[in-house]
Amino acid sequence: MTSPARVLVVGAGLVGASIGLGLRPGGTDVLLRDASPTVAAVAADLGAGRLPGPQEPEADEPDLVVVAAPPDVTADLVVELLHRYPRAVVTDVASTKQGVVSRVVADAGSHAARYVGGHPMAGRERSGPMAARGDLFVGRPWVLTPVAGTSVAATALVHRTATRLGAVVVELDPASHDEAVALVSHLPQVAASLVAARLVGAPGQAVALAGQGLRDVTRIAASDPVMWAQILAGNAVPLARQLRLLRADLDRALDALESLEVAAEQGSGATGPGTWTQASVGALARLVADGNAGRATVPGKHGDAPAVWAGVPVLVPDRPGALASLIGTIGEVGVNIEDLRIEHSPGRLTGVAEVSVLPAERDRLVAELRERGWSVPD
Amino acid sequence: MTSPARVLVVGAGLVGASIGLGLRPGGTDVLLRDASPTVAAVAADLGAGRLPGPQEPEADEPDLVVVAAPPDVTADLVVELLHRYPRAVVTDVASTKQGVVSRVVADAGSHAARYVGGHPMAGRERSGPMAARGDLFVGRPWVLTPVAGTSVAATALVHRTATRLGAVVVELDPASHDEAVALVSHLPQVAASLVAARLVGAPGQAVALAGQGLRDVTRIAASDPVMWAQILAGNAVPLARQLRLLRADLDRALDALESLEVAAEQGSGATGPGTWTQASVGALARLVADGNAGRATVPGKHGDAPAVWAGVPVLVPDRPGALASLIGTIGEVGVNIEDLRIEHSPGRLTGVAEVSVLPAERDRLVAELRERGWSVPD
Repeated sequence: MTSPARVLVVGAGLVGASIGLGLRPGGTDVLLRDASPTVAAVAADLGAGRLPGPQEPEADEPDLVVVAAPPDVTADLVVELLHRYPRAVVTDVASTKQGVVSRVVADAGSHAARYVGGHPMAGRERSGPMAARGDLFVGRPWVLTPVAGTSVAATALVHRTATRLGAVVVELDPASHDEAVALVSHLPQVAASLVAARLVGAPGQAVALAGQGLRDVTRIAASDPVMWAQILAGNAVPLARQLRLLRADLDRALDALESLEVAAEQGSGATGPGTWTQASVGALARLVADGNAGRATVPGKHGDAPAVWAGVPVLVPDRPGALASLIGTIGEVGVNIEDLRIEHSPGRLTGVAEVSVLPAERDRLVAELRERGWSVPD
Repeated sequence: MTSPARVLVVGAGLVGASIGLGLRPGGTDVLLRDASPTVAAVAADLGAGRLPGPQEPEADEPDLVVVAAPPDVTADLVVELLHRYPRAVVTDVASTKQGVVSRVVADAGSHAARYVGGHPMAGRERSGPMAARGDLFVGRPWVLTPVAGTSVAATALVHRTATRLGAVVVELDPASHDEAVALVSHLPQVAASLVAARLVGAPGQAVALAGQGLRDVTRIAASDPVMWAQILAGNAVPLARQLRLLRADLDRALDALESLEVAAEQGSGATGPGTWTQASVGALARLVADGNAGRATVPGKHGDAPAVWAGVPVLVPDRPGALASLIGTIGEVGVNIEDLRIEHSPGRLTGVAEVSVLPAERDRLVAELRERGWSVPD
């Protein structure tokens, strides 16, 4: 049950270089290869591994090959590397799995037994080897998608390697994986992009009214277009299914709004309670209520059941040391901070820190903070 | 240019009680009224104002009446109160304005000159007087929507009152206000609800893979359905316009995905680069790129231009005192924390604190933290 002694990482960007950085401290010999010699050199320079020397015999076969290349070349590389290294286990990190797995099974013949599909669910808003971190995978799910013909030993090797990197391994069949990421990753990405795209060309006076809601909904809209086009295209079937379901709900909301619109045009020109119908308002309330129910299923931190932290708002002057002093006080009191959000207000120098703690500790914390002179509204 | 000496707040929930709490320390006599005597009593008990005594002459007219009742009864109340208090200025806090303003202008005759539409852009996930805070409006935009017939003195009084509460007053015409909130508030609310609604009944193994992206996109999906049904219905015309534009973008993305889907069905059953077309992948990349452009327009904190903080990730053990110690160190170094997000990982007890600071201070902070033994990846 040892980790691989020699790992070849093909693709030395964010994920590949992070794998190298994470494995080398354990003594693994990490070899780096990249279509861009510069990327490979930068990753090696950062300590993610070494470049194969000119005299390096190809026959010094790695125990494990990790294909961490862009999704659109992953399957071809996996097949090629399975042939080149006839004893190595090969895995990949592409964010959709059915396309890659079916291609490899179809094209690699009996070699496919040594291939284990993988998807570490970790990323950053930045990309490239400069953004790599040896702890990128710590505590994150790493999905493996072995199929009927996959060697148990191959799966075990990849499993051990992912665990060594601190990841929590989850085994799913490729189709279930792709359905899952369509729902929890690709659908929110598309929704964030769709909302953010509406802001292009909007009047400054409108966008100036934006609050934390818009900021949260659109945060991931800042993601890389070329990478995401590959990811979305690679999961077209399950994603289209999710988007059609979303569109049906959207159409119901639009029907409700449009019936209110028609009533408004026949009336004063603006909507108001006088023109509302039970059906229209009911449909809108149902949409929001369905959202409540869905939101309640989203796990909180630690992969646990939905977070039920208690929030404690505390006023914090926006200057060096103020937040430190607050957090220091909370530490003295012995309460663990489960989450912390700072909500600054436009045009003012006071922020509100929303401190999340275990519900059982909330009242004590509020009392202790107030006793120490902190302003805890409510 | 003094503040009002006597204010009648009609509707003693979150917003009404917060107005009372914010005005009373300045010496304003705040009277509270609510359709629910219990709500009024709770708000008074919290210090938001006093209940009119049985002997209180109706003739002791308030200088300002604030209607902080649900949107669907706001216009009727405004008209009624303009008649009952023939010298008072009347304002409201409903989150859409054209419907209320046009109703008041149509129904209140010359009295309408004393009405100033208002919308404080502040709220909480909780509602009711127990959630009220005197600082609820500090630093938040407070939109006023005076129209041609509105008395300048009336607008000035409401302006002063909102400023007294710490708000940043913005004047807009009612239609521009409603267009703006449709875009920056109601559209993200609907999108968050639509995405969250898709999670209802989803397999646990799928939702377990959720990360911060899904959590951010769906956070506001936890909002109150009945209140939001009124808000959305009250802004049906501009919101429907925004949703139709979003649906057109969604349809383009779906067209692209469906052409990939057809190609997949004719091929291996799964999509892959071999079946991708330039047009399809290009359409998906354009959607994400448009989202990038829109996201870049979203103001950061302090109502400034988009935030360009530099992020410094620091590993933090998940135990009481660890975060305190980190923040304490940053305070000692003299760097101001502009924002802070704690990213815990499922199944692991170490979190990553993403500390946002001014870009000019980033390198110094990283060096100082490392010198003090903190693990700062990168």
